[in-house]
Amino acid sequence: MTAKPLLLFVSAHDNADPWVAELKAQLPEVEVRVWPDCPDKAAVDYALVWKPPAGLLATLPNLKVIFSLGAGVDGLLADPALPDRPLVRMVEPGLTEGMTEYVCLHVLRWHRDSPLWEQQQRDRVWKQSAHVPLARERRVGVMGLGALGSDAAAMLAALRFDVAGWSRSPKDIPGVKGFHGADQLPAFLARTEILVCLLPATAETDGLLDAGLFAGLPRDAVVINASRGQVLVEEDLLAALDSGHLRGATLDVFRTEPLPPDHPFWTHPKVTITPHVAAITQARTGVQQVVDGFRRHQAGQPLVNLVDRSRGY
Amino acid sequence: MTAKPLLLFVSAHDNADPWVAELKAQLPEVEVRVWPDCPDKAAVDYALVWKPPAGLLATLPNLKVIFSLGAGVDGLLADPALPDRPLVRMVEPGLTEGMTEYVCLHVLRWHRDSPLWEQQQRDRVWKQSAHVPLARERRVGVMGLGALGSDAAAMLAALRFDVAGWSRSPKDIPGVKGFHGADQLPAFLARTEILVCLLPATAETDGLLDAGLFAGLPRDAVVINASRGQVLVEEDLLAALDSGHLRGATLDVFRTEPLPPDHPFWTHPKVTITPHVAAITQARTGVQQVVDGFRRHQAGQPLVNLVDRSRGY
Repeated sequence: MTAKPLLLFVSAHDNADPWVAELKAQLPEVEVRVWPDCPDKAAVDYALVWKPPAGLLATLPNLKVIFSLGAGVDGLLADPALPDRPLVRMVEPGLTEGMTEYVCLHVLRWHRDSPLWEQQQRDRVWKQSAHVPLARERRVGVMGLGALGSDAAAMLAALRFDVAGWSRSPKDIPGVKGFHGADQLPAFLARTEILVCLLPATAETDGLLDAGLFAGLPRDAVVINASRGQVLVEEDLLAALDSGHLRGATLDVFRTEPLPPDHPFWTHPKVTITPHVAAITQARTGVQQVVDGFRRHQAGQPLVNLVDRSRGY
Repeated sequence: MTAKPLLLFVSAHDNADPWVAELKAQLPEVEVRVWPDCPDKAAVDYALVWKPPAGLLATLPNLKVIFSLGAGVDGLLADPALPDRPLVRMVEPGLTEGMTEYVCLHVLRWHRDSPLWEQQQRDRVWKQSAHVPLARERRVGVMGLGALGSDAAAMLAALRFDVAGWSRSPKDIPGVKGFHGADQLPAFLARTEILVCLLPATAETDGLLDAGLFAGLPRDAVVINASRGQVLVEEDLLAALDSGHLRGATLDVFRTEPLPPDHPFWTHPKVTITPHVAAITQARTGVQQVVDGFRRHQAGQPLVNLVDRSRGY
């Protein structure tokens, strides 16, 4: 009798219980262990990981496929000892839907001047604004049109916003004006009143949201970053807010997480922050992706949502 | 030569300039005056009004049609001297779209626990939540399915919320579970985690959102009122929030507006208020409705969006 294939779950940031329960329910033919419970490293066939200890995966000699628990794999790729095995990115509806909710909420919030009303409530001021534009009159721009960006852009269009998208290569999303490549970035920025960044963290996008990019946005534009902290130059954002060029920012991700207690973002009057909660992979639907990958691998079929390490996502 | 028909604009709450400009552009065959500039009351044929002085309309002997600047006509109907002329309610896309934006924003805000994150930012606390449900797992209920409620309910369903609607008579909105009448109100309330009230203010709806109704909602439910202040019993809402039964409330309308400076809503930690800005009639599209009504009346055709005074809307 052959031993069951073994899957190792590795995350210090997630509660393993719902994941193990879903894996046992949906994948009974696999044995599941939760790191650091792993007496025989040579027995590990599959790994499902979020921010594993650096070098850990290299100590698993018979590892066949690495599944990421999150959409972003920049943390994994930063490990110089990451073994050369197929790496599957998490693309699951819960992650996509959660991100789209977050993006719609924060675009609507700035579109509808919520920070002003919140301040007025604190000051007990009853005062209406002269002009309230409609969503159809508000130009929103989404940078990054992968699984997350495409869904968010389409939903913003459904909410009647005037939406454009920008990505490295051309993408066609119904109801969304398409821009792509470095050449079309200035035109995209010039028409964007609310910028949503959903770019993956790669060598190319590192620090892309900097002073030069902010200068290309119209005055009173808003920046929403829900992708990765490395994409944004934090000092440049603060400068653009303080100069009065930008109206505000919503940030879910940061260069250092947790955000240090003395960071100026915490108390900046124009900055709304959330603690990296825009989108959380859901155990039930996340495990479905692992099951699909496992079945394909066992059947010798090509894996989907494979990371292209040369691109970084 | 016959004098031009005369339209009198009456509102102390709106800037008349954009309205007059749009009326002149879209309806050049009509003379427009802005109250109190009205030397000859007998010359007034049409009135476009928001909260006119009580009794004013009764002093216009040749008034033919009254157009309301807002969707709600409860203020007009409360004038015992309101003349018995056709009364046209404002149904214009800007009003509907603005309300839908407001509803989606505030449903998303409570759905995604924004008040918690805002408090954590003030306290410089970085802490994620154990479970973040998706919109598809969140049950939202919309009371009132007229032009505003139908559009809001459909958009909430597009945002993937699990949406039900309740109205006096049956309404069929794709993707929205229908409830109607007093008999079905308890079942509607029992499944509603976030309640959105878009009911018109009538004798029937006065004080409908009271302690008994709140008790029918599940624990930790949220109430959003963007229709009329009279629909809500404010003390009952405060009691349901303070007892811990309700999680929070967003209110755009109040029994007394402006909200008095000493009202407990201003500082209540579970209450978000906005100064009656959920939906503002837009001059450009609003005037299109007046033009349509004027042309129909001149041609002897039936008017649309007429108020049924026996129903109150």
